[in-house]
Amino acid sequence: MYAPQGVKTNHNEFPVPESQRAWVLGGPGELVFKEKPVPVPKKAEVLVRIDAVAICATDLEIIYHGPPASIQGGLPFNKDFTPGHEYMGTVVALGPGVDEYNIGQRVAVEIHAGCGQCKRCREGMYTSCHNYGLNYGDVDKGHRANGFTTDGGFCEYQVNNINTLVSLEDEMTDEEGTLVVTAGTAMYALTELGGLVAGESVVVTGPGPIGLMAVAVAKALGAQPVILTGTRDNRLEIGKQLGADAVINIRKTPDVVAEVKKLNGGKGVDYVVECSAATSAVNDAVRMVNRGGKVCLAAFAHEEVPVDVAHIVRNNIYVYGIRGEGKSATHRAEAYMRQKRFDATLIHTHTFDLDDLPTAIRYAKDRVEDAIKVVVKAKMGAAQKEAAE
Amino acid sequence: MYAPQGVKTNHNEFPVPESQRAWVLGGPGELVFKEKPVPVPKKAEVLVRIDAVAICATDLEIIYHGPPASIQGGLPFNKDFTPGHEYMGTVVALGPGVDEYNIGQRVAVEIHAGCGQCKRCREGMYTSCHNYGLNYGDVDKGHRANGFTTDGGFCEYQVNNINTLVSLEDEMTDEEGTLVVTAGTAMYALTELGGLVAGESVVVTGPGPIGLMAVAVAKALGAQPVILTGTRDNRLEIGKQLGADAVINIRKTPDVVAEVKKLNGGKGVDYVVECSAATSAVNDAVRMVNRGGKVCLAAFAHEEVPVDVAHIVRNNIYVYGIRGEGKSATHRAEAYMRQKRFDATLIHTHTFDLDDLPTAIRYAKDRVEDAIKVVVKAKMGAAQKEAAE
Amino acid sequence: MYAPQGVKTNHNEFPVPESQRAWVLGGPGELVFKEKPVPVPKKAEVLVRIDAVAICATDLEIIYHGPPASIQGGLPFNKDFTPGHEYMGTVVALGPGVDEYNIGQRVAVEIHAGCGQCKRCREGMYTSCHNYGLNYGDVDKGHRANGFTTDGGFCEYQVNNINTLVSLEDEMTDEEGTLVVTAGTAMYALTELGGLVAGESVVVTGPGPIGLMAVAVAKALGAQPVILTGTRDNRLEIGKQLGADAVINIRKTPDVVAEVKKLNGGKGVDYVVECSAATSAVNDAVRMVNRGGKVCLAAFAHEEVPVDVAHIVRNNIYVYGIRGEGKSATHRAEAYMRQKRFDATLIHTHTFDLDDLPTAIRYAKDRVEDAIKVVVKAKMGAAQKEAAE
Amino acid sequence: MYAPQGVKTNHNEFPVPESQRAWVLGGPGELVFKEKPVPVPKKAEVLVRIDAVAICATDLEIIYHGPPASIQGGLPFNKDFTPGHEYMGTVVALGPGVDEYNIGQRVAVEIHAGCGQCKRCREGMYTSCHNYGLNYGDVDKGHRANGFTTDGGFCEYQVNNINTLVSLEDEMTDEEGTLVVTAGTAMYALTELGGLVAGESVVVTGPGPIGLMAVAVAKALGAQPVILTGTRDNRLEIGKQLGADAVINIRKTPDVVAEVKKLNGGKGVDYVVECSAATSAVNDAVRMVNRGGKVCLAAFAHEEVPVDVAHIVRNNIYVYGIRGEGKSATHRAEAYMRQKRFDATLIHTHTFDLDDLPTAIRYAKDRVEDAIKVVVKAKMGAAQKEAAE
Repeated sequence: MYAPQGVKTNHNEFPVPESQRAWVLGGPGELVFKEKPVPVPKKAEVLVRIDAVAICATDLEIIYHGPPASIQGGLPFNKDFTPGHEYMGTVVALGPGVDEYNIGQRVAVEIHAGCGQCKRCREGMYTSCHNYGLNYGDVDKGHRANGFTTDGGFCEYQVNNINTLVSLEDEMTDEEGTLVVTAGTAMYALTELGGLVAGESVVVTGPGPIGLMAVAVAKALGAQPVILTGTRDNRLEIGKQLGADAVINIRKTPDVVAEVKKLNGGKGVDYVVECSAATSAVNDAVRMVNRGGKVCLAAFAHEEVPVDVAHIVRNNIYVYGIRGEGKSATHRAEAYMRQKRFDATLIHTHTFDLDDLPTAIRYAKDRVEDAIKVVVKAKMGAAQKEAAE
Repeated sequence: MYAPQGVKTNHNEFPVPESQRAWVLGGPGELVFKEKPVPVPKKAEVLVRIDAVAICATDLEIIYHGPPASIQGGLPFNKDFTPGHEYMGTVVALGPGVDEYNIGQRVAVEIHAGCGQCKRCREGMYTSCHNYGLNYGDVDKGHRANGFTTDGGFCEYQVNNINTLVSLEDEMTDEEGTLVVTAGTAMYALTELGGLVAGESVVVTGPGPIGLMAVAVAKALGAQPVILTGTRDNRLEIGKQLGADAVINIRKTPDVVAEVKKLNGGKGVDYVVECSAATSAVNDAVRMVNRGGKVCLAAFAHEEVPVDVAHIVRNNIYVYGIRGEGKSATHRAEAYMRQKRFDATLIHTHTFDLDDLPTAIRYAKDRVEDAIKVVVKAKMGAAQKEAAE
Repeated sequence: MYAPQGVKTNHNEFPVPESQRAWVLGGPGELVFKEKPVPVPKKAEVLVRIDAVAICATDLEIIYHGPPASIQGGLPFNKDFTPGHEYMGTVVALGPGVDEYNIGQRVAVEIHAGCGQCKRCREGMYTSCHNYGLNYGDVDKGHRANGFTTDGGFCEYQVNNINTLVSLEDEMTDEEGTLVVTAGTAMYALTELGGLVAGESVVVTGPGPIGLMAVAVAKALGAQPVILTGTRDNRLEIGKQLGADAVINIRKTPDVVAEVKKLNGGKGVDYVVECSAATSAVNDAVRMVNRGGKVCLAAFAHEEVPVDVAHIVRNNIYVYGIRGEGKSATHRAEAYMRQKRFDATLIHTHTFDLDDLPTAIRYAKDRVEDAIKVVVKAKMGAAQKEAAE
Repeated sequence: MYAPQGVKTNHNEFPVPESQRAWVLGGPGELVFKEKPVPVPKKAEVLVRIDAVAICATDLEIIYHGPPASIQGGLPFNKDFTPGHEYMGTVVALGPGVDEYNIGQRVAVEIHAGCGQCKRCREGMYTSCHNYGLNYGDVDKGHRANGFTTDGGFCEYQVNNINTLVSLEDEMTDEEGTLVVTAGTAMYALTELGGLVAGESVVVTGPGPIGLMAVAVAKALGAQPVILTGTRDNRLEIGKQLGADAVINIRKTPDVVAEVKKLNGGKGVDYVVECSAATSAVNDAVRMVNRGGKVCLAAFAHEEVPVDVAHIVRNNIYVYGIRGEGKSATHRAEAYMRQKRFDATLIHTHTFDLDDLPTAIRYAKDRVEDAIKVVVKAKMGAAQKEAAE
């Protein structure tokens, strides 16, 4: 029986086992389902029973290539690491002194818990924690990035700092709950761009999950027009349903910058959220905005890309790289989702059982059946299972 | 006699002729000294007798290649255009209703007067005016950029919007007064980077006039350490005199990013002000800052440069292109110069008579006698003339 | 025929007479309907044919007591002054060089046009213009506050700086258009409070027009909960229709601060927008917010009120007085109204013909038939007239 | 021998005893010197040997009246509580995992360590922690306010979160080191007021320690003019030495608001830092600033004071209550002190041995010998002792 000292549980209602099944990263692309102990929440932490977890492009990156080099020392493969970072679940145990959350409460989970001590954390910029990745062994500074530098969500139970939790209402499905982080990243992008975008013009480049959520959030904030660019008409169509006033298929448009200006009354737009990772994306973005405009980079090519710095300087353009979902943006995103400002579930296409993670990953990676967001559920009922197949 | 209707003059103390001598741009690289009428100040404008004007790298750009393409329509050569934008002088006539300045008052002059009506001007971002360049003929929106889109300072008299004026004390020499705009650009860079830099770490890349002023302003604001990088030891030495805690000659340093980190206790710095225009400058800058750090681009290569966007996004880095000296930064720069926080005159090396502008330009362009800032004075006394030679 | 030099008209479609009928302020409370010339738009101005104008509490203030003492020198009664500042209409003539608006375009009109030259205007804070009121005779600095320091809207035609215009779609009625400024003031309040209020808690005190719009805007921005306090149940009921999650009738509540905390999970709220002008309002507000919370004062008692400064300091509370509808908030408000985020017309209760202004004023002042917003229209059709009676 | 598990010590160089002598609060005004255990640093904490501690007005408040009512539940007298919060010392033991500081390092200590989990801490506003005072028994959320809610510095050893530490150079004396927090509070005030105050006008009201430091910091930032108001000429004289361009003895000035405007070229100033706690201070402050100006309240009367709210609203004035030294302002203050931008020691007047705390308190309370800052040192050498007497 799971009963760590100082930890509060309620086994009657939410029984917690001592061990769990978890997907563990072997060599590149290799995932093994194995038994692992259920972790123990410390001060300011809770244990979350993972009810659903979505697959993100960065999960694929990690599974096939390992964690990004920017993490100190990196993480070797074959070290019992469990990936997965877009999850939601139920609080089933409370670390010592935690009374901010109750056992039984449903929560979505942000990726980043900052160390709380570094310059950035002290400023409220916890996604830029200067102790990023320092949570192993002798140098545990308390930073955690679920599924990046600490064990993530492709399993049954995970501990989380209470800073990363976002309460969910019962009305929101598990699947929608996994999208809070995605929408939170989009909200963070629009926060960095100024936040007050009602009546202002926004272009979103790239209709992946974050791009589509950026359309939804920009529209919910009151932006007009919201223009989405991309290469696939079916994705652009979903963008329209999420609030895009206009879409541009760049495969069919010789000059996307000119087209954006045409759609915006002849002028550059106020903001661009770049979510495409295309090689030309930065240059397109800085040319799409007007003088003094702002660009948020939420995606990136792996190689260096050519950038027209002269244009950026001459036109007083600001470019913001963002990592994750900082400045409590997930809370604002969840509020919009709770208030039904947009239907995030439009980007959820498939659900699989946790046991079928390899299949789920294949759907996400190869966009099988036009998959956008593929969700995995630990305890899928038969009905749901049937629906997913 | 200069006596336009509604304009206030005081010919006893400050006689103003009806015409003046002005350098006018012919073909590329060709300047002609000719007679031009003294312009007339309108509402919210004054007439400034130009007492000194410094030569900036962008002046050379304009003289040899014409105004930047970003100006609407551009400006053809051979159109009676007078370049020059870093000037100071004496108010000698007041436009209708002006009482903010007096005849006889010494002033430095910002480059940019916004239109006052566009989105950016309404936000206080007058250097990003959306009517940039629209001050000709039928589309006069009131925007002015001295020596870029309107006649500049290589002449005897020029009109200026009162928004562009900065009062100078009698104690400040004319030559130092011309440097207010240069220091103002550096101040604007540090303003965009957050403003509160006391105790924070700053790298300035490139020891040109703006870079050297950025060192001075960063130090005056209390930054520590302030590190200057460049290729010429004599310039780096001046940087030390202006407050750099450390300098790096990149010609002698295999890995400038590593060297910066070493000088900053093993960590990336908080801010970089990029003033070198080197091809590798943006990548070096984004790698020199720490996670969540900020980079201000005050210079640019003419060609596109390769940029590691992945690094920017993964490390949540902000990159600010700046144009000119926005957000009233010249006023803050002048206050520091008035208070002797740094000695801007260290970057002033040569003075010539207005008649000798071509020689002055040669000194500036070819860095004759290690020239940094070369100043031209309309009414140089014999003593000064002797000193300059 | 109205044909001032340099002004563009289109008499075929929008004929403009040379003189108009305008209500003019006599002694306190005395309004006279008289003939006045149609004013002439200057550079960056247009002539607006006033189609509808709403009555604001400050109009009553001015009509009965004269303009506020804070205006330089004040304005004596009996000086041919036309009050009224919440109006919308149709552009019927363009000042020299204006191409930002077309003849025939429908517009709502902000109150404040800053001088464009002072410290605040240069910062984008045009509602805090340091040349406030300086638009008469020898000291015309270009500042205008419609119906406060310049002639307002209780007439047929008025000039306006293009900075004050907000485009309206044909779908929006004239009556709703007059509410753009009211909603803009509420939007400005929430802008000053931080702007990013999705998921955060807001109390609005006082269900007058601005308070009710503050409820609507806060909810549209995603705030939760939004709590409205007041003394009249019918007004609170409208607040609910506009999005208030809870209302408190302070006449029936012994301790409103305790009640607010109870409604917000036991804690103080993040923001208060004070719109009641009650003597206890400031103290209630600073006690309703949590530590580090923010209070916006959009209303005020005429006498000094007792304030618990110790509470403000100990709890690190910020208090923002706001004047008008700064930082382009009307544009954001109009975007929300265009997008049907809330139904501003819920606060519009009565419409009268311009000829019946005294009756309209009586309705507004004495809240006849529970009047909230009373609108006056210059060219009311018979049907509308009937509806209003 | 002090050797708690997981804690790192170096007894050779910095021996730490197991118990210490500490002043403990008895009844109101009653302090008892008694034996207490040396506390043990936890994760992210260090043990500081207190080398010097200054007496603040709020210490007197606590000693005579108990901690402020705003602390949850308050703190009864006679509970073994040690006051004192303006201290510096030497790190002598490291909590588990701490490598940010070394044993032997000299540090000044901020008062506030936030919980790291609440809304405000997540925003970087740790001085407004929503778990203020919750660091006892069952509800230990990790918040600490030295000498307010946790044991303070009138003793020999104290634990501190590393977030509260500011490194000191060997060149700075212990006495000056105790003033880092005072200067930090002044820096926080000027940070809230906008930070970029070079060339802008500032009034400081009240020449107590914080007021005098506000003069010094404002001047170091480049403000001009800096005007100090007060009632005692000797204090105003020190203000001049710290950089005030002008001083006003309000006892000798019939209309201080008019006098301020006269000293500022006829206009209201941009900022006021209120440090006097006078009943009329808030009204004077809001009338001293110009339209759109900002007031920071760093002091407060204990009773409610009458405030002209109408003036605040009509003139778009912002009023910021501040608590403590937030937003890492102590680090900026220490950088200025390290760089000799001002001589904080001008406000240090007396030093006593820790044994003589009651005498030191009497000097501070009754301003014996014009005492300003009175410092107590635990291990005073004979020479210093002699000098202090």
